[in-house]
Amino acid sequence: MTQELIASKTVITPEEMLEHWQGHRRVTRKVIEAFPETELFNFSVGGMRPFADLAMEMISMGMPGIDGIVSGKWAKYEEGNNRPQTKEALLDLWDELTEKLNRLWPQIRPERFLEIDLAFGQWEGPIHFTLFYFIDNEIHHRGQGYVYLRALGIEPPAFWDRG
Amino acid sequence: MTQELIASKTVITPEEMLEHWQGHRRVTRKVIEAFPETELFNFSVGGMRPFADLAMEMISMGMPGIDGIVSGKWAKYEEGNNRPQTKEALLDLWDELTEKLNRLWPQIRPERFLEIDLAFGQWEGPIHFTLFYFIDNEIHHRGQGYVYLRALGIEPPAFWDRG
Repeated sequence: MTQELIASKTVITPEEMLEHWQGHRRVTRKVIEAFPETELFNFSVGGMRPFADLAMEMISMGMPGIDGIVSGKWAKYEEGNNRPQTKEALLDLWDELTEKLNRLWPQIRPERFLEIDLAFGQWEGPIHFTLFYFIDNEIHHRGQGYVYLRALGIEPPAFWDRG
Repeated sequence: MTQELIASKTVITPEEMLEHWQGHRRVTRKVIEAFPETELFNFSVGGMRPFADLAMEMISMGMPGIDGIVSGKWAKYEEGNNRPQTKEALLDLWDELTEKLNRLWPQIRPERFLEIDLAFGQWEGPIHFTLFYFIDNEIHHRGQGYVYLRALGIEPPAFWDRG
């Protein structure tokens, strides 16, 4: 009965949710890698931001975001001034967040995902909404990166391959 | 205690998951609407498919996909030959799926989301993985649509506005 009740409210478990996020982050890392150094920081289509800026937006959400999710204490959202100037430095920051998410995730209280909070002190919603916002925003901007790569004549990594 | 056990395995409930999907689908509908008729079917960047084709891919997954999720019986995946030739016909099909999802969703057995199944007879994974694949694939391609719109000089609908 208890098992049934658990299942009745579960679409995805916390452990699976971390893997869902990290799987998408592995794809995004491959997209960063696929850009030539110069185009990563300068190329875009339709007056949009270059992919390095989009990747930095993802990092700027996730890095303080996981702290807020764990602790309930939110920093103000800001994209930061110390932006990496090279692909290597950007990938290092990417990997730092990968490690941070794996390290802090087990500290999220089990009931936390359904709690209402004010993310970054300004966006109200259940924690799962905030989490999906981070992930969906990444997928959204990464999709734009796919167009940039195609426009550059570069084959993007397979969308479905989370390995 | 039971309540605590439920929470301990719950990131998002089935009801919230439907709203998550439909919220994204409302944004995508606005993207379809934002395209001029001709460009919806003909314009693209970098040799990619026009947005009508991408929207049809979403519909071709969701329409038989929800049947498979509910019943465990999967049709073979195919994008279909009866493609709409106008924006209005495409939006009608979009709305048909909206209604179908709302109608069938309550029939999904509660424990179904964690079950392993062979989606469309060929992709194995938990049902939540398949569901997120539908949603994430939509976000991914919609992000591409945003670039097409920007390249056409058209302001896309706000990504964060699911209303």
